[in-house]
Amino acid sequence: MTVDLGRTSERTSLTVSSVTFADPAVAVGLCAVVDGAPLVHCLTNIVVAGFTANVLLAIGASPAMVENAEESGEFAAVASSVLINLGTLSAERERAMRAAAAAAHASGTPWVLDPVAVGALAHRTAVAKELLGSHPTVVRGNGSEVMSLAGVGGAAGKGVDSAAGSADALDAARWLARSAGCVVAVSGATDFVTDGTEVVAVPGGHPLMTKVTGVGCALGAVMAGCCAVDPRPLVAAVTASAVLAAAGERASVGDPGPGTFAVRLLDALAELATEVRPART
Amino acid sequence: MTVDLGRTSERTSLTVSSVTFADPAVAVGLCAVVDGAPLVHCLTNIVVAGFTANVLLAIGASPAMVENAEESGEFAAVASSVLINLGTLSAERERAMRAAAAAAHASGTPWVLDPVAVGALAHRTAVAKELLGSHPTVVRGNGSEVMSLAGVGGAAGKGVDSAAGSADALDAARWLARSAGCVVAVSGATDFVTDGTEVVAVPGGHPLMTKVTGVGCALGAVMAGCCAVDPRPLVAAVTASAVLAAAGERASVGDPGPGTFAVRLLDALAELATEVRPART
Amino acid sequence: MTVDLGRTSERTSLTVSSVTFADPAVAVGLCAVVDGAPLVHCLTNIVVAGFTANVLLAIGASPAMVENAEESGEFAAVASSVLINLGTLSAERERAMRAAAAAAHASGTPWVLDPVAVGALAHRTAVAKELLGSHPTVVRGNGSEVMSLAGVGGAAGKGVDSAAGSADALDAARWLARSAGCVVAVSGATDFVTDGTEVVAVPGGHPLMTKVTGVGCALGAVMAGCCAVDPRPLVAAVTASAVLAAAGERASVGDPGPGTFAVRLLDALAELATEVRPART
Repeated sequence: MTVDLGRTSERTSLTVSSVTFADPAVAVGLCAVVDGAPLVHCLTNIVVAGFTANVLLAIGASPAMVENAEESGEFAAVASSVLINLGTLSAERERAMRAAAAAAHASGTPWVLDPVAVGALAHRTAVAKELLGSHPTVVRGNGSEVMSLAGVGGAAGKGVDSAAGSADALDAARWLARSAGCVVAVSGATDFVTDGTEVVAVPGGHPLMTKVTGVGCALGAVMAGCCAVDPRPLVAAVTASAVLAAAGERASVGDPGPGTFAVRLLDALAELATEVRPART
Repeated sequence: MTVDLGRTSERTSLTVSSVTFADPAVAVGLCAVVDGAPLVHCLTNIVVAGFTANVLLAIGASPAMVENAEESGEFAAVASSVLINLGTLSAERERAMRAAAAAAHASGTPWVLDPVAVGALAHRTAVAKELLGSHPTVVRGNGSEVMSLAGVGGAAGKGVDSAAGSADALDAARWLARSAGCVVAVSGATDFVTDGTEVVAVPGGHPLMTKVTGVGCALGAVMAGCCAVDPRPLVAAVTASAVLAAAGERASVGDPGPGTFAVRLLDALAELATEVRPART
Repeated sequence: MTVDLGRTSERTSLTVSSVTFADPAVAVGLCAVVDGAPLVHCLTNIVVAGFTANVLLAIGASPAMVENAEESGEFAAVASSVLINLGTLSAERERAMRAAAAAAHASGTPWVLDPVAVGALAHRTAVAKELLGSHPTVVRGNGSEVMSLAGVGGAAGKGVDSAAGSADALDAARWLARSAGCVVAVSGATDFVTDGTEVVAVPGGHPLMTKVTGVGCALGAVMAGCCAVDPRPLVAAVTASAVLAAAGERASVGDPGPGTFAVRLLDALAELATEVRPART
């Protein structure tokens, strides 16, 4: 697959590999989640907390939302992985996020940073950059968020939505991955995942995924679930993207309304989890 | 349409105009939301945040929930409009609401106040009255809430539910609109919207809309979306009421259970948005 | 019904009565909720707040989430009943919980404690034990939570999930009920409810109920709803368990995906409520 990097790159194109759910490695990765039933500690926002929990349950993970400073460090150290999503910050939630990130880093718990709306608001941009110091395993955002976090100016999104396509952010993603020592996943019509060197494209999905709140946030949670059972963050993030894209395609058959689509997306995730690992009882 | 004002008025009836989704102005208003894709900054409650975001996405708006004091003023100044819903107050959320209301007023961003359960609890009644000082564009509540905010005693609702019908609150709504210099919308079996002089009735909807949490709260968000693209608050609030009533009627066909109804309501909103503005791609 | 108490008991088995939705007393209890439309004050978590409200609305109760310290005591004193769920603690939510529990106890308002993830985290274990001092009417948890609250070591769950079956916790539940002077309900494949002497088993339900977030939390809310209209906490808690189990069975017909199941669960609760008390208009 050849990606046109456009104005953000000195080069005009970049050859990347492309992965979909049809790749056996994706099924293996999802199967590992089903078998491992990882405990995913989520510090997320009030908009998507319920949907995120349901997405994780659908693929066999065990979500637990603990977001107070007294408990989040203790919990991050024992959880299988941690998700930190900056959607609805509060002073206490921030303290809890700092404690969770530090504890995850200290204990070797993989953790995912979802820098929601970073770039659009100065305060959360600073919070996100500070959290990078606790070495997230994966950073997942849209084009604007990744470019802002990489310090590429002028890319601030519109609220929580991106003003930049995912390919536009590819150079910024590679730079961020190298400088922060993590995997960076850029969501868009095609998702891109990079460790700074290798770039994997995950095509697919469906535009309805942008018409339901929390699909991107849930993707971050699924990445946390996959990181818990696979020590290769690039593979884990690609697996998560490919699983969600496949579920989105399946749920969009017949072009349902967004309410129906959200319900079917959960059904589709559970179906995929069952197909890779039929119940043995 | 003639409304019996009952015991709350010295007069026995009031002639008001009546608007439904069949009115071309409503389709024009909804079309403006679809075309404008306004960024609606929501400070709302933990119960309905997800549903509210999905309702706004269904009609083509771009919701963003930012509810911390560090960011809410900055964001309110750049958003297309702001919703402040008092459902689940917290000390920090209150600070954020004050900052957002003040910033919206200072920057000319239209904003909607939803005084959930005002009258039933003293603290939030004081908060709501203070926020009136930042000149909301629209106040949307049920009969009890509007009467309480207008200082009409004895109307305290039962928790978040109204003890008064929307027509009972019509005099209070007109007084509140005139004294606060805003549009007041009273939700009920028939919605009433007034700028203090003119009164518009929006009939329709369906009783199932009271069997799903957040329909009233989502109406406030839709009003914010409409205010973002129409400088006439009375028209914007009427448009929002008529759109939600029409979606409620469509979603209730066959009298589904409340779970199914909530899903169909999102589908119906997206259908209405598509019907007034078919995708051009 | 004979329950194997296994290693947690000196005795090897215990004879308990068994109740399902087919028991006329359950229909009577649900009918009392429909007729009484109790105002249920919920202090719950950001994951399940919306689902909990929808569950209560489906059975005819009137949910209201008020979780700030300024208001929760005042509201608990006038509500029909109170639910305190420790899912997503915060410093302010804890203050509000203490105020609500104290006010409920002082005013004779029945209240339900749901000690989510107690045992897994030290801080919330202390909070839960402190709240026991305000004499909850019912404590509802899974096996691990109940055992932890009873001080039976080594039973800490995996996040919010139980590491122990409900029968394993039966001795702990009976001890906790006697020492705290409340009814204790242990959720699991079979639910058990005890006042310390009598034990009632509520079989039924469906494994899909563990694949959707918030079903256990919603059960606590339904117990609060039932306690509001029945002065017998044991009967109220059994009624709630039997109603939710029956709804779960009905919603699982055809083995739907978890997204569809959650929607149908709300529909099924509303159906059950209608069947015991058809609309009279």
